Amino acid sequence: MEEKQLVSSFCLCARIMPLNLYLCPMQILDGKIASQAVKEKLKSTVAHLVAEGKRPPHLAVIIVGNNGASETYVASKVKNCAEIGFGSTLIRLDNDVPESVLLQQIETLNNDPAIDGILVQLPLPKHISEPKVIETISADKDVDGFHPVSVGKLVQGLPTFVPATPYGIMLMLEYYQISTKGKHAVIIGRSNIVGRPMSILLSSSHAYGNCTVTVCHSHTPNLKEFCLQADILVAALGKPEFVTADMVKPGAIVIDVGITRVADATAAKGFKIKGDVAFEQVAPLTTAITPVPGGVGLMTIAGLLQNTLQAYLNKFN
Amino acid sequence: MEEKQLVSSFCLCARIMPLNLYLCPMQILDGKIASQAVKEKLKSTVAHLVAEGKRPPHLAVIIVGNNGASETYVASKVKNCAEIGFGSTLIRLDNDVPESVLLQQIETLNNDPAIDGILVQLPLPKHISEPKVIETISADKDVDGFHPVSVGKLVQGLPTFVPATPYGIMLMLEYYQISTKGKHAVIIGRSNIVGRPMSILLSSSHAYGNCTVTVCHSHTPNLKEFCLQADILVAALGKPEFVTADMVKPGAIVIDVGITRVADATAAKGFKIKGDVAFEQVAPLTTAITPVPGGVGLMTIAGLLQNTLQAYLNKFN
Repeated sequence: MEEKQLVSSFCLCARIMPLNLYLCPMQILDGKIASQAVKEKLKSTVAHLVAEGKRPPHLAVIIVGNNGASETYVASKVKNCAEIGFGSTLIRLDNDVPESVLLQQIETLNNDPAIDGILVQLPLPKHISEPKVIETISADKDVDGFHPVSVGKLVQGLPTFVPATPYGIMLMLEYYQISTKGKHAVIIGRSNIVGRPMSILLSSSHAYGNCTVTVCHSHTPNLKEFCLQADILVAALGKPEFVTADMVKPGAIVIDVGITRVADATAAKGFKIKGDVAFEQVAPLTTAITPVPGGVGLMTIAGLLQNTLQAYLNKFN
Repeated sequence: MEEKQLVSSFCLCARIMPLNLYLCPMQILDGKIASQAVKEKLKSTVAHLVAEGKRPPHLAVIIVGNNGASETYVASKVKNCAEIGFGSTLIRLDNDVPESVLLQQIETLNNDPAIDGILVQLPLPKHISEPKVIETISADKDVDGFHPVSVGKLVQGLPTFVPATPYGIMLMLEYYQISTKGKHAVIIGRSNIVGRPMSILLSSSHAYGNCTVTVCHSHTPNLKEFCLQADILVAALGKPEFVTADMVKPGAIVIDVGITRVADATAAKGFKIKGDVAFEQVAPLTTAITPVPGGVGLMTIAGLLQNTLQAYLNKFN
């Protein structure tokens, strides 16, 4: 705690110094550590449930086709369920599966009392309507938080499933006790999956909200000006290393949501994972920053697991 | 059109002049004119429907108790329905009506094929849960746009019922052909009824959206700084004459959503209606401004009527 205060006062002084003339002590917001803490707590909750003779929460995951990134995400979700004692069911459908078959599969899971959460891995093949698929998932099992009912309740401040990535970011802010009240958060990106829900969460009235929030996007002509105002900068536009040092206010907190595979012949897999922030040049300016990989990505799974537990608990309350 | 261009170029010059040293030619965004235009179009649509042998759209309004402002709003809604040829049903319930009776009444209207839109006038007495009432209204008849499904679809850019006041503001921007793309909109207030949906609408991708949007509220420490950045300033905090000339950038467009009854012994009714903007001092600085009364308030009804027609049309498509 003492160390954190030292960092704060140093940065306060730093703000009145000219840009780039100093290096600010900076904290890495480590997704591995923060997600592990969430998972340990979940594991202990499951152990208690099972000790009481109850069944553990159960997540069903549907994957359509065999997109490389989707395969990785789905495998990780199943593995994480196992680690904390959740049950999971993985359902694989061919890339050319008719939409009606997918919808029927979802209905079956909706009606199965042994399934608490349902997740259909996106993106889906072009012949399938994503909104239709999302609306078919029962709102009570919508652990991805993409159903209109979940989104509407999020906006209205009612109990709901928060989309996994924004939820993961909030869990990270909570883990590192990052104060947000009254700060100016600038969000680059207005997607339904990240930018939009983040803008709602950070500007709403709760412990890690109450920010003034600015939403920037592809039609923002003077993006750099807005970024330079940010006490908290959330980069969620999906352009590798887009945010450079000249766009960041000294002392800012930077949350990097980007995960892009960039071809790299020197890497064993032929690609490297890059975030939306040019980490090496930006990090020294910040008070705190999430790395990529090892930052927000790991928190997404923590958010999903929390939602699955919540769906389970809602059934019995 | 020529006049509009003249105004624009004058204001462009004015922006580089010191604050308060000039008076900018300004356009009143007249809610009476704009709402009349919407209503004329609706009236003509209804006439066509009836000429084809179809029944007109029908709105059901429920009022609980006898709050003065609510009585005025409800009377105006019924009167406006009649003006354009919509049918309407007004249901009055006592202030101490049990919640279950109100919910049962809503269910009856949900199941009545002759009713297209249902509106329960807010606020409700304390013993009744507003979220429960709102969620009981069928999402297909939610012409107030407050149901979580409507709000979620709004966020996701799907066809939906936009809450009446924000919808009315969008209709006004459309009527006066106010360009929004790339502008910085600052919204004071984050209510579910106005501030939040306005922030979503203005930042979304459509003809009168694509703004960079900043949401300010009671925890914004440096509100004036943000307001001074606004190309479009939306005041929706409910504090009479809160926005003063020193908070407005010369050439801005100002949308005043406030409607507060302020005691005034000199007025016939004992009160005057005040907006959130100190109109007399702010108006000369602006390119365009909505007055109170006679601005956004009238557009709210236009939004509601549009939603009711949409609910009617959705049934037959």
